[in-house]
Amino acid sequence: MQATWRWVAGFALASVVAAGAVAQNVRPDRAIKYRQGVMTAMNWNFGVLAAMAKGDRPYDKDAALKSATFVEELSHMPWDGFAPGTDKGAPTKALPEVWKEPAKFKEHQDALMNAAPKLVAAAKTGELAALKTAVGEAGRACNGCHDDFREK
Amino acid sequence: MQATWRWVAGFALASVVAAGAVAQNVRPDRAIKYRQGVMTAMNWNFGVLAAMAKGDRPYDKDAALKSATFVEELSHMPWDGFAPGTDKGAPTKALPEVWKEPAKFKEHQDALMNAAPKLVAAAKTGELAALKTAVGEAGRACNGCHDDFREK
Repeated sequence: MQATWRWVAGFALASVVAAGAVAQNVRPDRAIKYRQGVMTAMNWNFGVLAAMAKGDRPYDKDAALKSATFVEELSHMPWDGFAPGTDKGAPTKALPEVWKEPAKFKEHQDALMNAAPKLVAAAKTGELAALKTAVGEAGRACNGCHDDFREK
Repeated sequence: MQATWRWVAGFALASVVAAGAVAQNVRPDRAIKYRQGVMTAMNWNFGVLAAMAKGDRPYDKDAALKSATFVEELSHMPWDGFAPGTDKGAPTKALPEVWKEPAKFKEHQDALMNAAPKLVAAAKTGELAALKTAVGEAGRACNGCHDDFREK
């Protein structure tokens, strides 16, 4: 076996993970760390935009567009990490409601995935006022879900 | 101040972060957690592809395309998290070489960003053999950087 394939094999064994559809293969601790990793990355990039919106950081069109694009991309990623059976296995602030009220949880996911492209559109205008509006909407989407589905 | 803006303001204050260009505003602990979060998310999604390539998980074109797309998107994200001054501030396996040999580190970043779109292209073919080849190349890109720039 080539060195590269030994490494890939080790990688696969070390991270036997799966999307929701084959949840029986998901290691809960890895799923929890995955979704937290995505949320941390989203938090950083949304933080860049929020700081500009708030005036805590000078407006910079390129930096705004980069972070908005990353937030939009990241907005699609965490959900597989909430697969059934991943309510425990590592420290998590996710409340049981995530798995008890999947339809409502999905509505919140959709709210974020609808708000995130507006960040990109606003960043493309180069107008701080547009960015502020979009940051407000995206912030409400984050907050709406965190209020009901994340431990305070 | 509206409730939403109170929240956004809190968010901005809690995550005063910046891209490399304004590194003086980066909180090292947040930058370290950001890059680690991105890497964790990349690991999960690359793990899905590696498991398919290795035969540890049934091949699934849609799941492969989703994870390949996420890996490609994520491949652009971690680098701002290695801003100057973020060599310490939270536990990190990043070696001092990241900041001592920026040109070589950039070469490794480029190798990953070049390999990742090939994962997407391979996933689109629906051919497991194509995916295996692309996973091999992307794995070498990951490994090449980790060998020199990450603590064992």
